Amino acid sequence: MRQVYLDYSATTPVKEEVVKDMLPYYTNFYGNPSSLYGVGIEAKEGLDKARERVAELINADVREIFFTSCGTEADNWVLEGVADALKNKGKHIITSKIEHHAILHTCEYLEKHGFEVTYLDVDGEGFVHPETLDKAIREDTVLVSIMMVNNEIGTIQPIKELAAVAKTHGVLFHTDAVQGLGNVAIDVKDLGVDFLSMSAHKIYGPKGVGALYLRKGMRISTFMHGGAQENKKRAGTENVAGIVGFGKAAQLAEEHLEEHISHSCWLRDYFWQKIDENIQGVQLNGPKENRHPGNLNVSFDYIEGEAILLMLDNSGIAVSTGSACSSKSLAPSHVLDAIGVSITKMNGTIRFTVGDFTTKEDIDYVTDVLIKIVERLRALSPVNGQKGW
Amino acid sequence: MRQVYLDYSATTPVKEEVVKDMLPYYTNFYGNPSSLYGVGIEAKEGLDKARERVAELINADVREIFFTSCGTEADNWVLEGVADALKNKGKHIITSKIEHHAILHTCEYLEKHGFEVTYLDVDGEGFVHPETLDKAIREDTVLVSIMMVNNEIGTIQPIKELAAVAKTHGVLFHTDAVQGLGNVAIDVKDLGVDFLSMSAHKIYGPKGVGALYLRKGMRISTFMHGGAQENKKRAGTENVAGIVGFGKAAQLAEEHLEEHISHSCWLRDYFWQKIDENIQGVQLNGPKENRHPGNLNVSFDYIEGEAILLMLDNSGIAVSTGSACSSKSLAPSHVLDAIGVSITKMNGTIRFTVGDFTTKEDIDYVTDVLIKIVERLRALSPVNGQKGW
Repeated sequence: MRQVYLDYSATTPVKEEVVKDMLPYYTNFYGNPSSLYGVGIEAKEGLDKARERVAELINADVREIFFTSCGTEADNWVLEGVADALKNKGKHIITSKIEHHAILHTCEYLEKHGFEVTYLDVDGEGFVHPETLDKAIREDTVLVSIMMVNNEIGTIQPIKELAAVAKTHGVLFHTDAVQGLGNVAIDVKDLGVDFLSMSAHKIYGPKGVGALYLRKGMRISTFMHGGAQENKKRAGTENVAGIVGFGKAAQLAEEHLEEHISHSCWLRDYFWQKIDENIQGVQLNGPKENRHPGNLNVSFDYIEGEAILLMLDNSGIAVSTGSACSSKSLAPSHVLDAIGVSITKMNGTIRFTVGDFTTKEDIDYVTDVLIKIVERLRALSPVNGQKGW
Repeated sequence: MRQVYLDYSATTPVKEEVVKDMLPYYTNFYGNPSSLYGVGIEAKEGLDKARERVAELINADVREIFFTSCGTEADNWVLEGVADALKNKGKHIITSKIEHHAILHTCEYLEKHGFEVTYLDVDGEGFVHPETLDKAIREDTVLVSIMMVNNEIGTIQPIKELAAVAKTHGVLFHTDAVQGLGNVAIDVKDLGVDFLSMSAHKIYGPKGVGALYLRKGMRISTFMHGGAQENKKRAGTENVAGIVGFGKAAQLAEEHLEEHISHSCWLRDYFWQKIDENIQGVQLNGPKENRHPGNLNVSFDYIEGEAILLMLDNSGIAVSTGSACSSKSLAPSHVLDAIGVSITKMNGTIRFTVGDFTTKEDIDYVTDVLIKIVERLRALSPVNGQKGW
């Protein structure tokens, strides 16, 4: 049976070149990078090279890149680190209603510890408007955190404009770029952001590695206390092989960015055209323009997304309902809710994300399967008669 | 040139069997374990298997094992998690003067946030005495954290007795077992500990993976906020391949524990005998009994440890001065200081740790090289005349 993976926003396979670069760090250059002897220095050099590559991908300085264990850790670090460092200046944080749980749940934690959080509304396509942010900033606001690309509906936020608003008020600006990295061109200097979170496993690197861009001069409290690793900013023996893999994935992402974007966009648009032409009662959620190159978020009327997912899985096709990282959660999507998707449409929603290994043949196969599944599920649906499908 | 790695307490090479088990999780079973389809379920099964293996190594239940990104994260989580969860009960924590920086620096962080920490004295061999702990416990004590095996001088603490003292007073007990795992038999039920920190890269697993044993019924605050991973206790997409590697390393550690201990002890004792017989003005720091099976911590009079380290490195031999994880730190060892080693002896101290790949021939080679290095350095030493070497 053909296997088609259409959940690149949940995670990506690791590219062969990446694994090849990682392997020597398990058995040959296995030293502790904090050590002063040969095999430790070799490990340290692996870290240095990876840091250069990640820095290059976002046009940062190598001294501004700090490796973490995942994007979630980078998000936790920024929010808690700024909150702790600036608590005497103010206790107000601004974010949006459609952030990843790594941001939202950390905000809830901070709310329990005396901070106040404003969750900005978004428009029907998921955009945060700069004027909405402008109005929300207060005297005691210490941080604005708006994600670069939404993980469910693919909205690419106007980060440069939003960061400029924060800067006008002298407020620090963070963006969770986990879904943006490798999918949109990122230049931290041009964007004017102070902090940016990244993850390796969304760009064909390994799971268990992330990074935080910390603009030069930014001082935030440490999140992980212990040894003097990462220039004394993040303790814990470095995940050397993983970081090396992140570096290689970043290099590949930079080299193939245009190609990746045009390949993904073409497939995404081709796929949506086929769905739209062949299946009635569908709705594309999220924006038409400024959208993640691989993302389609589609509501199918009168059927359950989970049923579609399981039947697609039976045909070797991997997709997601709602959010990538919490597929097992039964809660309705806070993102779809924020853009005004009704609860019935929400229940029939599937996220497809294409990537570097997706082909036109994959899309043709998936469309054929999908048409039959939707037909079959609607025939079984108790509300079927309403529309007469 | 012969390469001899004698810094197993800093980190270990990853065993071939471990790498072999990890590899499929990069390119074949690459799914997100939170996903509901095939390739995600395969990843989830990898996690489950690893959790079983780690649980078995310490005689825990699988539901008591939570994977983290390193031992440092596990330590941070316990200290901050208990402090936050029990802050209304009390704000006093007890630890020892010879803990790893992951504990000590987290304690310092807590001290800045309204907690009080007692740092227990140790005896000349680095042991924490149960009666010392007993006297230090107060009404407002919420946690005792004592490491299982010291990373510098190898002291194996009487954890069972110490945990019993804490229990008598109704106080929670944590042990950082990063240096203990795979080097001493661990049975959490017999020890009576509530929390136990582990790391994969000290037991021939990959860097970037750790775990926390959280005894059933224990409720501590979350350290990493976000998705619902690790039974909602530790957010962030799991380092699947790394965790699978940890599991395999744990299985191997359990299977070969006795063999590993007797091999290491024999080499360690043989090595010390050769040093003691052939080099004057040496001192073994730490205990004679109840010592890490692979650890030798030796002070060489009238010479600098760093000079020995660099000259050994020139002969392909990897060792550590002071602590493993902070070799680049210029601060004198807090552990050697706590057991009363003078500053001059401290400066001439080397930590050797043998492991599974160390052979008698390695030790013979290292001894020969070491004798010449010590001779040469002492000939150059400005204080040489004092002893006439």
